Amino acid sequence: MLGRKGLISVARAREILLNSLQCSLSTETLALEETLDRVTATDIFAPEDLPNHPRSTMDGYAVIAADTFGASDSMPCYLTIQGEVLMGQKPVGRITRGNCFHIATGGLIPEGADSVVMFEHTVPVDEQLIEVVKGVGQGANIIGRGDDIKKNSLALPAGHKLRPQDLGLLAGLGIHEIEVKRKVRLGMLSTGDEIVPYAGPCPSGKIRNINSIALSGQARRLGVEVTDYGIVADEQESFFPAIEKAVSENDLVLFSGGSSVGTRDLGEKAIDTLGSPGVLIHGVALKPGKPVLIGLHGTTPIFGLPGHPVSAMVCFDLFVKLAIRLLNGTLETAAADEPYVDALLGRNIASAPGRKDIVRVQLREEQGILKAYPVLGKSGSISTLSRSHGYLVIEEAMQGLSEESHVKVHLYT
Amino acid sequence: MLGRKGLISVARAREILLNSLQCSLSTETLALEETLDRVTATDIFAPEDLPNHPRSTMDGYAVIAADTFGASDSMPCYLTIQGEVLMGQKPVGRITRGNCFHIATGGLIPEGADSVVMFEHTVPVDEQLIEVVKGVGQGANIIGRGDDIKKNSLALPAGHKLRPQDLGLLAGLGIHEIEVKRKVRLGMLSTGDEIVPYAGPCPSGKIRNINSIALSGQARRLGVEVTDYGIVADEQESFFPAIEKAVSENDLVLFSGGSSVGTRDLGEKAIDTLGSPGVLIHGVALKPGKPVLIGLHGTTPIFGLPGHPVSAMVCFDLFVKLAIRLLNGTLETAAADEPYVDALLGRNIASAPGRKDIVRVQLREEQGILKAYPVLGKSGSISTLSRSHGYLVIEEAMQGLSEESHVKVHLYT
Repeated sequence: MLGRKGLISVARAREILLNSLQCSLSTETLALEETLDRVTATDIFAPEDLPNHPRSTMDGYAVIAADTFGASDSMPCYLTIQGEVLMGQKPVGRITRGNCFHIATGGLIPEGADSVVMFEHTVPVDEQLIEVVKGVGQGANIIGRGDDIKKNSLALPAGHKLRPQDLGLLAGLGIHEIEVKRKVRLGMLSTGDEIVPYAGPCPSGKIRNINSIALSGQARRLGVEVTDYGIVADEQESFFPAIEKAVSENDLVLFSGGSSVGTRDLGEKAIDTLGSPGVLIHGVALKPGKPVLIGLHGTTPIFGLPGHPVSAMVCFDLFVKLAIRLLNGTLETAAADEPYVDALLGRNIASAPGRKDIVRVQLREEQGILKAYPVLGKSGSISTLSRSHGYLVIEEAMQGLSEESHVKVHLYT
Repeated sequence: MLGRKGLISVARAREILLNSLQCSLSTETLALEETLDRVTATDIFAPEDLPNHPRSTMDGYAVIAADTFGASDSMPCYLTIQGEVLMGQKPVGRITRGNCFHIATGGLIPEGADSVVMFEHTVPVDEQLIEVVKGVGQGANIIGRGDDIKKNSLALPAGHKLRPQDLGLLAGLGIHEIEVKRKVRLGMLSTGDEIVPYAGPCPSGKIRNINSIALSGQARRLGVEVTDYGIVADEQESFFPAIEKAVSENDLVLFSGGSSVGTRDLGEKAIDTLGSPGVLIHGVALKPGKPVLIGLHGTTPIFGLPGHPVSAMVCFDLFVKLAIRLLNGTLETAAADEPYVDALLGRNIASAPGRKDIVRVQLREEQGILKAYPVLGKSGSISTLSRSHGYLVIEEAMQGLSEESHVKVHLYT
């Protein structure tokens, strides 16, 4: 049984977890189009200049800038159209003084030209001749060879989650195979004599298995490969071999579902029996989520999450997510993946000092101001979580928050 | 060619787009575990009470509250342990005055009991007898039948994106098949005589195809099914049939890649040739992204995105995403999917009035304050987008933003 004494803070528990884990995932090489949201295993350097030739960034005329110096509406300069740059083709010939090439956006700058005059700053005189009414400087409206990225420079660092624009950059460089971290493998067990599969009938006294699908969903959204080991009986003979199998086949193991004292003790005993270092954390000053159990077998973290779905999901957000990020090497860049919005609190919330409170809220815009309202409901109600847009945190030192406080709402996207 | 005149504002373009589209996706029925991030097609009502029986939310003793009234450390009340509630089983017997049942969190409340006293508020006297040192009110530490969600009440509305906790709620209610909206189908074409597949060699004058993989990535992250129709030549005989085929097979069509005037004209002509209503928008007051082309064939939107990858991706965020959300019915709830952070601007940025500027920024924490720095680089550089954490918007009425301005940074997660 967990009293208030001996509980450690969430921050301390996260620190212990971080210090105990290491990023040791193996890697695999995939075709570029298979790597969206995967994590780079190595630094990636540009194998060539991008672009590979100077190009125009405007529709207009490629010119020698010196020919246009001082040109204005009242004193235009005149240039002869020497040729046209065809898209996708190398320009034919070298530009000479007093001449220009017709060029479209993306067109290759002809030899001898050093800038582009926009169409908008020219007036056609006849088929062969234009007036330039605004001079340009050298390099104007040109993207030079390697201006996007230079050969041999760092395109992407190791440990980078590949977003659509990163795939674009790699495609632009002709990189079509990438070494990425293997996906984190998570084994999921449910325990508890009261838990039955959600799809069948639910006899009196039983509870449908909510946690497996909810926690799997949280994991899958982080790119994790989940194996569900099903519902395991609350007895040593069933539970120990099941958790041992899950540990041997995964990078990370969760068990959840049983909320009785017996199940909790069984979990603790299982972790210690598996071998050192065993149980790291048992109980944190957190509401909901106090009875979380965290252990380690070799390098594999094992999480015993509370049976209440809300507590289990809160513990996932605070601890399991951290472990997954450490394992796949994205911890440093996690900030952008933890979206939040700022809001004004819609009503007072009380909380006990010395404990971190996670309060589920709904967001509503009222006269252009984003307000956050706590979602009320019995502890453990999965419907409160389903009705929430996100959560706010009441830190240990506080005794609550008053209406109109500025709060940061972490979004359940 | 697009000058500044005749351009419409981004807001007006979005309004035109919204008024022209309708949500008309068909639906499909899937197993619950297949529905993460899918969108509900109908309102879903609870088929049963959750929980289906009153349960304890604490480890302790099920009691009759009246027996404990006034109990305190100095004046405890004494209760006889009548029995124990076994997890997953119906309690045997009915509780009578002066008695209690040992119960764990999640245990079923025995008949006759109306509250639970926490272990922490009891002292064992012997095997059969406990002292209660703090009285409880009726209903304390109990979640009643239907307290999480009542039978026949609305569990989830239509048009709701299914998050992990929503799957948990449905599992808790025994709902194992869900009618969801079919995925939006998007057809992608690249045009432009200068575009070559990214994986092969890139002859002088050519550009690797960046847009297909980058835009596909943006679409796939929104749960869209993408069909890539490859690179199509800049000629009517190739382009018209290709776009017609894509329109007939998808809910939405993008073409992109050609940035020459010829390609743009070809796109406009293709949309008008396909039939009414044809071109809706050609050119918006936006940087980057000015030359965006939006049309409609029947109910299928067709987007001609600029050839520059950065412009194309910005147009995707502002217009294509809107269309996808309208098509799959998640427009109303999109707010939580558009994460942003508040930051202070790290330096001055100039901008032309009358145009919406999308400025890519890097975020850096400096002395606990989040600062946003514009990512500099030539127009169209895909590397600038890859180096960015998000973007900020300079509205039409403004002529720039000064250092230390408060800005909202929309995250590229």
